[in-house]
Amino acid sequence: MRPASRSVQQIRPVTITRHFTKHAEGSVLITLGETRVLCTASVETGVPRFLKGQGQGWITAEYSMLPRATHKRNTREAVKGKQNGRTLEIQRLIARSLRAAVDLIKLREYTITLDCDVLQADGGTRTASITGACVALADALTNMQQKGQLTTNPMKGFVAAISVGIVASETVCDLEYIEDLAAATDMNVVMMENGRIIEVQGTAETEYFSQKELNALLTLARGGIERLIQAQQASLLLDKLSSFRGG
Amino acid sequence: MRPASRSVQQIRPVTITRHFTKHAEGSVLITLGETRVLCTASVETGVPRFLKGQGQGWITAEYSMLPRATHKRNTREAVKGKQNGRTLEIQRLIARSLRAAVDLIKLREYTITLDCDVLQADGGTRTASITGACVALADALTNMQQKGQLTTNPMKGFVAAISVGIVASETVCDLEYIEDLAAATDMNVVMMENGRIIEVQGTAETEYFSQKELNALLTLARGGIERLIQAQQASLLLDKLSSFRGG
Amino acid sequence: MRPASRSVQQIRPVTITRHFTKHAEGSVLITLGETRVLCTASVETGVPRFLKGQGQGWITAEYSMLPRATHKRNTREAVKGKQNGRTLEIQRLIARSLRAAVDLIKLREYTITLDCDVLQADGGTRTASITGACVALADALTNMQQKGQLTTNPMKGFVAAISVGIVASETVCDLEYIEDLAAATDMNVVMMENGRIIEVQGTAETEYFSQKELNALLTLARGGIERLIQAQQASLLLDKLSSFRGG
Amino acid sequence: MRPASRSVQQIRPVTITRHFTKHAEGSVLITLGETRVLCTASVETGVPRFLKGQGQGWITAEYSMLPRATHKRNTREAVKGKQNGRTLEIQRLIARSLRAAVDLIKLREYTITLDCDVLQADGGTRTASITGACVALADALTNMQQKGQLTTNPMKGFVAAISVGIVASETVCDLEYIEDLAAATDMNVVMMENGRIIEVQGTAETEYFSQKELNALLTLARGGIERLIQAQQASLLLDKLSSFRGG
Amino acid sequence: MRPASRSVQQIRPVTITRHFTKHAEGSVLITLGETRVLCTASVETGVPRFLKGQGQGWITAEYSMLPRATHKRNTREAVKGKQNGRTLEIQRLIARSLRAAVDLIKLREYTITLDCDVLQADGGTRTASITGACVALADALTNMQQKGQLTTNPMKGFVAAISVGIVASETVCDLEYIEDLAAATDMNVVMMENGRIIEVQGTAETEYFSQKELNALLTLARGGIERLIQAQQASLLLDKLSSFRGG
Amino acid sequence: MRPASRSVQQIRPVTITRHFTKHAEGSVLITLGETRVLCTASVETGVPRFLKGQGQGWITAEYSMLPRATHKRNTREAVKGKQNGRTLEIQRLIARSLRAAVDLIKLREYTITLDCDVLQADGGTRTASITGACVALADALTNMQQKGQLTTNPMKGFVAAISVGIVASETVCDLEYIEDLAAATDMNVVMMENGRIIEVQGTAETEYFSQKELNALLTLARGGIERLIQAQQASLLLDKLSSFRGG
Repeated sequence: MRPASRSVQQIRPVTITRHFTKHAEGSVLITLGETRVLCTASVETGVPRFLKGQGQGWITAEYSMLPRATHKRNTREAVKGKQNGRTLEIQRLIARSLRAAVDLIKLREYTITLDCDVLQADGGTRTASITGACVALADALTNMQQKGQLTTNPMKGFVAAISVGIVASETVCDLEYIEDLAAATDMNVVMMENGRIIEVQGTAETEYFSQKELNALLTLARGGIERLIQAQQASLLLDKLSSFRGG
Repeated sequence: MRPASRSVQQIRPVTITRHFTKHAEGSVLITLGETRVLCTASVETGVPRFLKGQGQGWITAEYSMLPRATHKRNTREAVKGKQNGRTLEIQRLIARSLRAAVDLIKLREYTITLDCDVLQADGGTRTASITGACVALADALTNMQQKGQLTTNPMKGFVAAISVGIVASETVCDLEYIEDLAAATDMNVVMMENGRIIEVQGTAETEYFSQKELNALLTLARGGIERLIQAQQASLLLDKLSSFRGG
Repeated sequence: MRPASRSVQQIRPVTITRHFTKHAEGSVLITLGETRVLCTASVETGVPRFLKGQGQGWITAEYSMLPRATHKRNTREAVKGKQNGRTLEIQRLIARSLRAAVDLIKLREYTITLDCDVLQADGGTRTASITGACVALADALTNMQQKGQLTTNPMKGFVAAISVGIVASETVCDLEYIEDLAAATDMNVVMMENGRIIEVQGTAETEYFSQKELNALLTLARGGIERLIQAQQASLLLDKLSSFRGG
Repeated sequence: MRPASRSVQQIRPVTITRHFTKHAEGSVLITLGETRVLCTASVETGVPRFLKGQGQGWITAEYSMLPRATHKRNTREAVKGKQNGRTLEIQRLIARSLRAAVDLIKLREYTITLDCDVLQADGGTRTASITGACVALADALTNMQQKGQLTTNPMKGFVAAISVGIVASETVCDLEYIEDLAAATDMNVVMMENGRIIEVQGTAETEYFSQKELNALLTLARGGIERLIQAQQASLLLDKLSSFRGG
Repeated sequence: MRPASRSVQQIRPVTITRHFTKHAEGSVLITLGETRVLCTASVETGVPRFLKGQGQGWITAEYSMLPRATHKRNTREAVKGKQNGRTLEIQRLIARSLRAAVDLIKLREYTITLDCDVLQADGGTRTASITGACVALADALTNMQQKGQLTTNPMKGFVAAISVGIVASETVCDLEYIEDLAAATDMNVVMMENGRIIEVQGTAETEYFSQKELNALLTLARGGIERLIQAQQASLLLDKLSSFRGG
Repeated sequence: MRPASRSVQQIRPVTITRHFTKHAEGSVLITLGETRVLCTASVETGVPRFLKGQGQGWITAEYSMLPRATHKRNTREAVKGKQNGRTLEIQRLIARSLRAAVDLIKLREYTITLDCDVLQADGGTRTASITGACVALADALTNMQQKGQLTTNPMKGFVAAISVGIVASETVCDLEYIEDLAAATDMNVVMMENGRIIEVQGTAETEYFSQKELNALLTLARGGIERLIQAQQASLLLDKLSSFRGG
């Protein structure tokens, strides 16, 4: 039996709160069970040096956990003087995933930075970051169109991500922290709303896995991601409705 | 006229939400107008090397702003590889102020780290951090007593802090960001609940100030701090009431 | 047509030279086409702090490219003062993959560091590192048994890795640099000699991929990895033969 | 009784030696009792990026203690790889204080760096740095006028600073090291020659203080600063006299 | 008796393999007994800031040992986050020595970086680096002439270097590691092919030395360097012959 | 003609002021013409890890230039976050030279750190540092004997150092800054008081040098060093005399 009597394919309750902070062009608090991540999208004019003059934009990401987002306090990376390997790996994944959702030519020479700061961690922080950052990014792109910085919307579709794994010989979707600790295999999947794959990262933690198991995990992930994309769409719709009503 | 028609001695609306995140021994979200700071208190066994074997505890603090807590995005300090001077100055102030509220002998050989992470900035982040961290600290100390780590409460009383300043030739209490920008003189005051002073830091920004003006500012600060200490006390009381009712 | 008229499932010529340098307990030069990596295994007594007293060993890895292993010279990481995200990501992958090949309890309280230094890069450096490091590790473990540091061999089997991808709408095995540049999808696969999976990392570079394509890539990878494991086995056999002949 | 039988309002003997080293545009050795600080002012063309094109200059400061300026040797900050919080806090204070003494528009697009290097420490190093740096700055500004870099003198007046505190229940002026260790309250005051305040930083070390005590400390500080400003004026006068006599 | 029955003036077997890796403009593997260093020369357009617009080029060097080039594994400098003093001292020596071999005006506004990476260490790594880098530099300069980047060859002649020392009261040439450990005096000498001196660095390790001993060491060094310069010339000749034969 | 009409073998006026600062066990200000270096010797109990339990002491050195010791201001190394190659090279030389003057077994398990901080630079700062540090070291060792930390004096004799060079085709002793700039060859020599050599570092700056020239430079250096050792001896004698007279 999973915690909170979840079925193997059931994801935790998800909420997506937009405009969570006021300065960023996009600002989203995503909660997935007890995991909470603040995702902001910041627009800056210009692109990194290696893209200068190529008529395209760029999307980058930074990820961090507040020191006490976890059971035990972690040393602050600004104090240690560097970001650790796990952090760099995660923020590279977030940036790659969201770049896949955008037509960088249509973004013109702008850079959007996605900051994903984990306020509370209970498993799945990197995938929740991707799912939340996608909505923050959508808001920032809408904002750029409203300001006249962009003429067309560069977004190709929604992107969402979920973790899946094999726990106690069963394939389960959306692992929380205590499941993650016990997982024999652990896989993160990023997909477009059309069901095509952006990224798959599967790791044998304590037992090797077969191609068949990998396929079972992918199928589970697909279901979870569909549910997340509905939540993304609903959050944006809500806003349009409230605009419509003059809210 | 001040923004939101505030009178010169009036502070912005304050809310103190306890148990904002679940892992820390104390976790408080303080909002002061549009300024929002998440303050956590983390308890660790043992003390820094310079205090080993002296039969006392230690309180330290770390302060950070999320990159997009501000109008323009700031570079993340973990990426730059060091904390800047402003950050270090602020976290030294927070730690000094809270240490003044605690009997370190009674704390025994424990270290409490106060993490103040600014989610949204609109002036007064350092003083809001002190006021919020005081409640998180109080919760952590209660928690330590409940666990039997401490036999008596080391807290000497509440500590709160406010910024005051001279804006357009008037002394005003609790400056928000646009007032801060325009201030001729800027002062941060930290006080105990009994009205005695822990720290005063006054700086001439564009005009020197007189001893008389300094005294006028201190009097204003005293009023604002009294209001904040009421909010601290109310937040703790609420909890006791709800415990009482079984909430 | 692929470079050098390779078929889609054909890997580049592979050579595995053992005892390439003399100080390390295991030292292997692996060449895969024009990619050349020097992999050494160094044995040290003791384990990292987080494993002290748990009666098990540890395997870690470090990866680096010589500044002029590539077409354009890269800045040396020791000069920049930090390892970049790509480097950290790769060395975490190498270490995870090789730990999966070893029974850490049987390793007792020893740490083995696998250093993978790329002398010349032409695509597939991270997977060649894993394949080469596996042989260096095997040599180091044999050496430890000969010295009496270990009583049983902790190795569970050979591990090898290959990159596969979709280039010009075709799935191909073992991408060299110019193919890598053109790949729509890129996937690294790490497997045990028994065909079970240790790690899969697939990334959409310019086009999303389907679950069917992912399966086609995995099948291609399996073939390439079988060929690499034969090369690993042959390299070790050669040594046993030459020992046998007194060489 | 204070060390060396000083009265509570009496400062230690002060000497201000100008032209202490030959390369800097201003170079002053200030001694205050046993505290000795070498203060140099260096003029550079141009301003920091955030001020470019705004038609004004900038004044910045750096502070350091030689490793053996103190009773026990301190690790050199260049070896640790960063300046600590105390150092950054002090150099921010020095820079703010001296900027307050100068009309930055009249300074045109020049940057003056004030280096305060403590050769020997016996309490009050930050305030002695401000007092000494003011004379070095005055010399550098005179030098700039002589070279034709400036047409008018940007200096608004002399700035000096002193530490005051409550030791053994008495308010005393200009604390030396053993008094500093024993102080219940410690306050640094920076004033213009006209008696108006630039900065006040008061900290309760072991006991909270009252507004009345704060006022008593300010009054003591005012007396000490007057004495320091006389010493500054005398040091500059001496030079004019000796120029007059052809010395 | 020296190891391998070498006479006191005899250097170890030397091999110089050109074109060892394919991307660099010059790439040489030098082996001197068991010491092996990979030396590459990389050409970049432009010069460091301090030379801009002065119509000359620049030559710089970087030196590193692979972690397991030595008996015990050394921590990787990229992991420690800085190059140590020995590394910086050696790479400054290599760069100075090779700059002495080149007419920097004739090099025009190009920068050549010499990377010397020690694959295996057995004494004399810094001098082997200079000797090998000289051939890599020669190849890079020839390559630049072939590409039309240079019209004349800026090379003034060959440069080579050797270590000499006093071991067991005897002056010996080309110390290997176990001799180095036992040396009373240790000296590195860099010479031009015409026998004139570029650099001498002699250090008393356990016993002071006399001017007479220094002269004896220099004479020994001269002999060793002559032998190295023959090897450099032979390696280049070989290539010309093979070009001639169409190889 | 040399500056100040010095003859080629004449060194600049030298003064050695002991007890220049009060906290260090040895504290010397050495001036050599316009070059001024503050050298302190600090005694600490214990030795670095690599010497633990070997029954011997250690001597180490740190070197720094104040930012405005030079014509143009240099960036402070603590601000850059690392010591540069020149600094590390010099402090390694100072430490090696002084270790050669001391019997480390007699020093027992103490570490002496020699801090050489250049207050004003005019050529020859590294050699002046060695000469001054030797006197500071002698004072610290005497102090240790007086405190009973040592029973015998570990000092083997005085050490001094001088720079020599070839300027305008003439060999000259003790180069000042403008001579250093113009030197074709530059050599630093460290000797014991008995005339034996501790270190020789000769570098061709713009012209290669011959063995004959090297010998001429060594002879010049010997004369300069004799003069410096007299100054060292005189400075210590003075102190004994004044102690004798009760000064």
